[in-house]
Amino acid sequence: MKLTYPFSAIVGQDEMKLAILIAAVDPSVGGVLVFGDRGTGKSTAVRALAALLPKMKAVVGCPYNRDPALEPADAPKPKTHQVPVPVVDLPLGATEDRVVGALDLERALSQGVKAFEPGLLARANRGFLYIDEVNLLEDHLVDLLIDVAASGENVVEREGLSVRHPARFVLVGSGNPEEGELRPQLLDRFGLSVEVKTPTDIPVRIEIVRRRDAFERDPEGFTEKWKAEDDKIRRRILAARKRLEDVQVPDAALERAAQLCMKLGTDGLRGELTLMRAARALAAIDGDKAVGDSQLKRIAAPALRHRLRRNVLDDAGSTVRVDRAVQELFA
Amino acid sequence: MKLTYPFSAIVGQDEMKLAILIAAVDPSVGGVLVFGDRGTGKSTAVRALAALLPKMKAVVGCPYNRDPALEPADAPKPKTHQVPVPVVDLPLGATEDRVVGALDLERALSQGVKAFEPGLLARANRGFLYIDEVNLLEDHLVDLLIDVAASGENVVEREGLSVRHPARFVLVGSGNPEEGELRPQLLDRFGLSVEVKTPTDIPVRIEIVRRRDAFERDPEGFTEKWKAEDDKIRRRILAARKRLEDVQVPDAALERAAQLCMKLGTDGLRGELTLMRAARALAAIDGDKAVGDSQLKRIAAPALRHRLRRNVLDDAGSTVRVDRAVQELFA
Amino acid sequence: MKLTYPFSAIVGQDEMKLAILIAAVDPSVGGVLVFGDRGTGKSTAVRALAALLPKMKAVVGCPYNRDPALEPADAPKPKTHQVPVPVVDLPLGATEDRVVGALDLERALSQGVKAFEPGLLARANRGFLYIDEVNLLEDHLVDLLIDVAASGENVVEREGLSVRHPARFVLVGSGNPEEGELRPQLLDRFGLSVEVKTPTDIPVRIEIVRRRDAFERDPEGFTEKWKAEDDKIRRRILAARKRLEDVQVPDAALERAAQLCMKLGTDGLRGELTLMRAARALAAIDGDKAVGDSQLKRIAAPALRHRLRRNVLDDAGSTVRVDRAVQELFA
Amino acid sequence: MKLTYPFSAIVGQDEMKLAILIAAVDPSVGGVLVFGDRGTGKSTAVRALAALLPKMKAVVGCPYNRDPALEPADAPKPKTHQVPVPVVDLPLGATEDRVVGALDLERALSQGVKAFEPGLLARANRGFLYIDEVNLLEDHLVDLLIDVAASGENVVEREGLSVRHPARFVLVGSGNPEEGELRPQLLDRFGLSVEVKTPTDIPVRIEIVRRRDAFERDPEGFTEKWKAEDDKIRRRILAARKRLEDVQVPDAALERAAQLCMKLGTDGLRGELTLMRAARALAAIDGDKAVGDSQLKRIAAPALRHRLRRNVLDDAGSTVRVDRAVQELFA
Amino acid sequence: MKLTYPFSAIVGQDEMKLAILIAAVDPSVGGVLVFGDRGTGKSTAVRALAALLPKMKAVVGCPYNRDPALEPADAPKPKTHQVPVPVVDLPLGATEDRVVGALDLERALSQGVKAFEPGLLARANRGFLYIDEVNLLEDHLVDLLIDVAASGENVVEREGLSVRHPARFVLVGSGNPEEGELRPQLLDRFGLSVEVKTPTDIPVRIEIVRRRDAFERDPEGFTEKWKAEDDKIRRRILAARKRLEDVQVPDAALERAAQLCMKLGTDGLRGELTLMRAARALAAIDGDKAVGDSQLKRIAAPALRHRLRRNVLDDAGSTVRVDRAVQELFA
Amino acid sequence: MKLTYPFSAIVGQDEMKLAILIAAVDPSVGGVLVFGDRGTGKSTAVRALAALLPKMKAVVGCPYNRDPALEPADAPKPKTHQVPVPVVDLPLGATEDRVVGALDLERALSQGVKAFEPGLLARANRGFLYIDEVNLLEDHLVDLLIDVAASGENVVEREGLSVRHPARFVLVGSGNPEEGELRPQLLDRFGLSVEVKTPTDIPVRIEIVRRRDAFERDPEGFTEKWKAEDDKIRRRILAARKRLEDVQVPDAALERAAQLCMKLGTDGLRGELTLMRAARALAAIDGDKAVGDSQLKRIAAPALRHRLRRNVLDDAGSTVRVDRAVQELFA
Repeated sequence: MKLTYPFSAIVGQDEMKLAILIAAVDPSVGGVLVFGDRGTGKSTAVRALAALLPKMKAVVGCPYNRDPALEPADAPKPKTHQVPVPVVDLPLGATEDRVVGALDLERALSQGVKAFEPGLLARANRGFLYIDEVNLLEDHLVDLLIDVAASGENVVEREGLSVRHPARFVLVGSGNPEEGELRPQLLDRFGLSVEVKTPTDIPVRIEIVRRRDAFERDPEGFTEKWKAEDDKIRRRILAARKRLEDVQVPDAALERAAQLCMKLGTDGLRGELTLMRAARALAAIDGDKAVGDSQLKRIAAPALRHRLRRNVLDDAGSTVRVDRAVQELFA
Repeated sequence: MKLTYPFSAIVGQDEMKLAILIAAVDPSVGGVLVFGDRGTGKSTAVRALAALLPKMKAVVGCPYNRDPALEPADAPKPKTHQVPVPVVDLPLGATEDRVVGALDLERALSQGVKAFEPGLLARANRGFLYIDEVNLLEDHLVDLLIDVAASGENVVEREGLSVRHPARFVLVGSGNPEEGELRPQLLDRFGLSVEVKTPTDIPVRIEIVRRRDAFERDPEGFTEKWKAEDDKIRRRILAARKRLEDVQVPDAALERAAQLCMKLGTDGLRGELTLMRAARALAAIDGDKAVGDSQLKRIAAPALRHRLRRNVLDDAGSTVRVDRAVQELFA
Repeated sequence: MKLTYPFSAIVGQDEMKLAILIAAVDPSVGGVLVFGDRGTGKSTAVRALAALLPKMKAVVGCPYNRDPALEPADAPKPKTHQVPVPVVDLPLGATEDRVVGALDLERALSQGVKAFEPGLLARANRGFLYIDEVNLLEDHLVDLLIDVAASGENVVEREGLSVRHPARFVLVGSGNPEEGELRPQLLDRFGLSVEVKTPTDIPVRIEIVRRRDAFERDPEGFTEKWKAEDDKIRRRILAARKRLEDVQVPDAALERAAQLCMKLGTDGLRGELTLMRAARALAAIDGDKAVGDSQLKRIAAPALRHRLRRNVLDDAGSTVRVDRAVQELFA
Repeated sequence: MKLTYPFSAIVGQDEMKLAILIAAVDPSVGGVLVFGDRGTGKSTAVRALAALLPKMKAVVGCPYNRDPALEPADAPKPKTHQVPVPVVDLPLGATEDRVVGALDLERALSQGVKAFEPGLLARANRGFLYIDEVNLLEDHLVDLLIDVAASGENVVEREGLSVRHPARFVLVGSGNPEEGELRPQLLDRFGLSVEVKTPTDIPVRIEIVRRRDAFERDPEGFTEKWKAEDDKIRRRILAARKRLEDVQVPDAALERAAQLCMKLGTDGLRGELTLMRAARALAAIDGDKAVGDSQLKRIAAPALRHRLRRNVLDDAGSTVRVDRAVQELFA
Repeated sequence: MKLTYPFSAIVGQDEMKLAILIAAVDPSVGGVLVFGDRGTGKSTAVRALAALLPKMKAVVGCPYNRDPALEPADAPKPKTHQVPVPVVDLPLGATEDRVVGALDLERALSQGVKAFEPGLLARANRGFLYIDEVNLLEDHLVDLLIDVAASGENVVEREGLSVRHPARFVLVGSGNPEEGELRPQLLDRFGLSVEVKTPTDIPVRIEIVRRRDAFERDPEGFTEKWKAEDDKIRRRILAARKRLEDVQVPDAALERAAQLCMKLGTDGLRGELTLMRAARALAAIDGDKAVGDSQLKRIAAPALRHRLRRNVLDDAGSTVRVDRAVQELFA
Repeated sequence: MKLTYPFSAIVGQDEMKLAILIAAVDPSVGGVLVFGDRGTGKSTAVRALAALLPKMKAVVGCPYNRDPALEPADAPKPKTHQVPVPVVDLPLGATEDRVVGALDLERALSQGVKAFEPGLLARANRGFLYIDEVNLLEDHLVDLLIDVAASGENVVEREGLSVRHPARFVLVGSGNPEEGELRPQLLDRFGLSVEVKTPTDIPVRIEIVRRRDAFERDPEGFTEKWKAEDDKIRRRILAARKRLEDVQVPDAALERAAQLCMKLGTDGLRGELTLMRAARALAAIDGDKAVGDSQLKRIAAPALRHRLRRNVLDDAGSTVRVDRAVQELFA
């Protein structure tokens, strides 16, 4: 079993780590889109967070690891086992049938039976689906992934199959803005977006290289060394998930969110919905009883920056525009 | 069973709601095309309206839920059951054979029999077919859908199959005018078109976000709370359907409609036909005995705005042009 | 059985109706191409004319409804029945094998037999083949359809099949000149072309809408009302067919036709051939014994307007150019 | 059996008729390419000539109608019958496997045997292969057809088949120079090329239309009327074929041919070879013992005009350039 | 058995004939690329040379005619027979699987065995592979052919097959520089390139046409007439092959070759290697003991002209540039 | 068994040879990309190095030659044998399924079993994978190859297969910068890049040609002559591999590396990681205990030159820019 780089050993990249944490606490914020330089550990962070989450109880033999707690009350108790939280990579060139599942050709040919062969969406259920360079993926596949992530259900209508199964996962996409762009329609459907940069501080860079090399040369020793830190983060996530139900969103916070979105001119209301949910999850992480300015301010950029229309009169980057609006409103 | 957001709980978007209501009262007005910002609840409205309609009596085991009332008089009485009004989503990348139906490969391979496997059109019979981003669909598929919606019948000629079955449904398409455009030929074939916008009133926005979040956190409670309102709308639709037969269309109204279309220069006579039918349905909803200016004025924009030719001398939007013509005529 | 809108109830569009009548009297004039605004009842007219023609005697079980009168004298008499004159629609995206017919896969797979499965051309035999928006069809398919229509025979060479069967039909294509154009080679192969326009007379428009709505609300009653008129037209067609053999084409008429074509600079002699045949059919309809100027003048535009070369020095439309030439010649 | 328009009833178009005659006398001149206006009877001429040739003796059951006279001396005598000279049309969109032949799928699937199913080239053996609008065909198919026509043999290397059979035919292609052009490489491989034009003489046009109509209304009577003329042409061809062996080509004629080609700057020596062969065949038709200026002059344009390079300094058409060179040389 | 035009009867085209001779003596010089006018007998020359080579001893039933002399010493002696040196044509549109060989579908389907069905490369073993218009072939196929020709071995990795068999042949490609160009990468991989032109001398042209016609009218007689000349050439090739081993390449010659290549700025060292090998083969043909200036000068243009980079300051053709460099160096 | 050109007999090209040596000592530096002129022996060097490495112990019958030393301690001892280090060529036009492996169709069809048929990645395990003209390969295939090379594992998700097997190899790609470019994303994922040029020194060129010819004429003798030199290199590699574990990377060296990368503005930290690893491997080859400036300076260009962004203000080549930065830093 290959070891995963510890989440707590990741140097810097705080915004990315925060966004993934929030999505782990409340997957309903929608996926996370990570923009930025190559070689900055985007996929490492997802894998690391999934690895520190506690194993999940799942029905034995179920291709989508369904949760035994959701079985109908009158059904016989299925056998269960503990499985790690899955992180599924969308391989380059993956075809739609491999993603959503398809007719099981082997059984069709040998037994003449039309059976469903689950795809990557089934495997990602209750975990993470990671897409590298989401901007290189075909639009319709991105759309399909967001649809499923949003509904928590994979509906397959193909080759005479008509199947639906749970597919509740956090979608994490990475992208390089220098290559192909995503359509605004798709951007808007991601919950949060973060930017990662190559650090420019020499000691930070040395530390990253050192840790990376140390991990690769002795994975067991390195993992052991960071275990206590990772445990701390796990406890924080579990506590936040429990608290989430009870966090309040006062009218004042909703008004702030609406003002911010109108100031920035985002289309529709997905911006406000995401801002509210992400702020609530953040309050839960913070241990607060209600959403306040503190959460809204910290999460405004990840929740809104990818929803701005290009403004020809204002050539500031979208992060700058969000920050400026936050400062004016919350001044 | 997943709950649907209540129709009556939708804040604002009156034009869209009216158009869907009219189509529910008289499907012969043709489909509804919804243009506008992302994240404004287009698909929610369709689903919500279908959910509040009464269940329909259907033949048990019939793949297109045929109406037992239309059985030939001398046929044996089939078994029937009550089914909800279907809302079928056209999934992204749906292939023509999945839409219209195809050869049942399983039976063909295992039993050597050429049987028909019904598609999405069969399932949409007597309900709604919803297409998100209709402008991204291939023209020939849009055309096919409109053809079937118009004739109420799905005729399949493929792979040696020759099948026809009822496919009477209201076609609802959403589109974002910033992305690919529909050919004028196709636009003209939709009955009504409406525009939706992101609300700019802060309390309205807060209310929408509140309701949406409330629904998602407690679907049962929220649905219960709006039940009475939804019942009222249902009764209104049923009453209007009954009245429709008897609503008169006086010559004066037809003349108005013709004058309006000529003033706007729409090609052919689909504009007038739709205007007359939609106004009649609206009069039925209003409880009026005959179509009057009131109905024509309210429905003119949805019935005509997508049939205007681009006018290089008049760069006003099409809604403005229709409104102006209405004001001049009905002054 | 769905009822068809009565031919005689069609308001206006005289040129289109005349062209279809002529093709029904003498199919050898070649197909009819209808250009013009959307929503002007192009397909309605074809269907309506076919519906008023008398049923045809056909061999029972013959996939192309062959005429028992053409059986070899020494063959046993086949069983016959009466069938309506077929109007076959070329569905959008129809593939070549569905059009011309193909290997019967079911029999090939189950019985190992290479049998022919007839296509749309077989079904159109002795009737009409209607193509909506012929300019959107692939050139090679249009060409194939014209070839078959011209020879009256469908020759299939594919998948090891070598089949020929009668396919005598009137090809009617509709097109919108604003979308893709037809190659001149193809245009030239259509016999007649007509232009339809949205009427601009208010009472006419009201009448059309009224009749259309009346038909849709009560098809039986409406059809009954127009039955006598339709019967009159049917008798006119049958009489003209009988008379056709005996109509003379005097040398003077042929010279007129040649002069007209030379003046207009049409390539080849298809223009003259069509003009002569259409004028002869028209004389038969008129009840005349010989073709005269009256027929040539009325049919010149439909027979020639689609055969003109673009003339950079004369930017008048082709109809105007034909009319001008007619006036100069027949002055 | 459908009747063919009589060759001798074709009005005008002498160059085309001469070229086809020459190819019928000596197929080694290579194919004939016919350029020109649509509707000028290109395909009619080929079919007409083939129809007047005497039937050929062929081996019964042989898919390529092989000539019993070419059987090995020691082989048992096969059964023979008389078959008409074939004219095979290359249907639009014909695939390579249908043209060259392919694996017989029926036998492969039912008997597990890899048998060859002959294609159109087999059927064209000893006759004519007609391609309408050769310029619309894919280059590689044209090339393949010319290769086979040149070698007289069809070599099939596909799907594990390795078959060769005689395929000796005259290739006749028609083309419209206004549409896609042929690559010079391909042009050069056709033996002769001719140009056809719409006649501009009124009585000629009337005569053509009259005859065409007369033929279509009464094929038997019309054919009977021209039988004697057709017989005369048949006898001329048969006599020329017999004489061909003995016609001499004096050095003076070869020198003339070389001078003409150099003057015109044709690449390679195909021009001269064709000129020599066509002139020899023409001398045989003329009943002359040796090729003389008379033949060279008449056949120069058809043999060379499609082999000229574009000359930017001389914008005369290629026919004019050939004629000018002929006049200067033969002055 | 069709007769081949005799090599010795080819008029002129000395450079092409020399290049093919050299490749026949030492195939390791790499293939020959023939550029030039159409109709100049490119394919004739290859076929003619192969036909005069002595038959080869080959293992009976071996699909690639393997040489019994190369059997392992301890293997049982296989049956052998004499076969002509193969000349394989790459047919237009040949697919990769037909070229390299593929899974034998017949045996796979009928016996469930995965057997290899050899392709054209197998058949070309020990002979010539001729590609007409190599510039029209897909790059990857050209590359594949050169790879195999260079390694003398065909390695097949497809459809679960893993096969290698000898495929030692001389690759001869013809090309017309006016049509598509070859990538410099590919050009460089051909050993020699030659240019052929239409002769401009009248008696030469007459002689070619005469001989060609004489051959086609009486192949046996013509072949007999040139037999002695062909025998002489065969003996020369066989003698040169024997001598080749012992021809020396002095340092002075290598230095000359290197100087020439540097002066011309060819990339890499394939130019020098080819120049050395071709000069050595030429010395063997000449009967010389060592390579001298005589050979280098004669073979410089064929070995180098296709390896020059385009030089914007020097618009002389590549032949002229090689000749100039030769003259300066060897002055 | 074909002999390979000896590594030690390669003249010049020191940077390329060094890069391949380093990759052989520590494959975790990532692949090697070789840019440069055609015909400069790129593929020869890879093959030569692999050939001098000692044979590896591998499990008999294992399609990916797995290392028996990595078997689980409690597993039964498998049979082993000695196999040469593999060098796998990616053939032009290789399909993804041939590369990664695929469903074994033979077994699927004959036995109805879904078995995995390993691909080229399996065969390359523990050796080298060579791609000629990597820039002509499709991006997604390059990406896939780098992914597998980086993870050392081939994960196959296709056709219902879910397989993973070790695939640890050194990826060597050659490219010609004049043809298609690699995306910066892909460039960055290669560890080292080197440039090769045609030598311009005459004696060097003669020596190369001489050696190449000598090898081809007498492979055994030539190989024997260079055996001692090759043995020396083999011992050096084996010693370096053993020492690698103990080579230190002092902070000063890491700081240098970070400064160099920041000065050059490379994105992310792959540049530093590679620089550190390559320098460590080089120190091991040098026999040094710790990385020093000497190693960093020598390996800076191969490790970084392909990671530079285009700098519009500095049009020096990337090698020059790296060298300049090295000189400024290490001055």
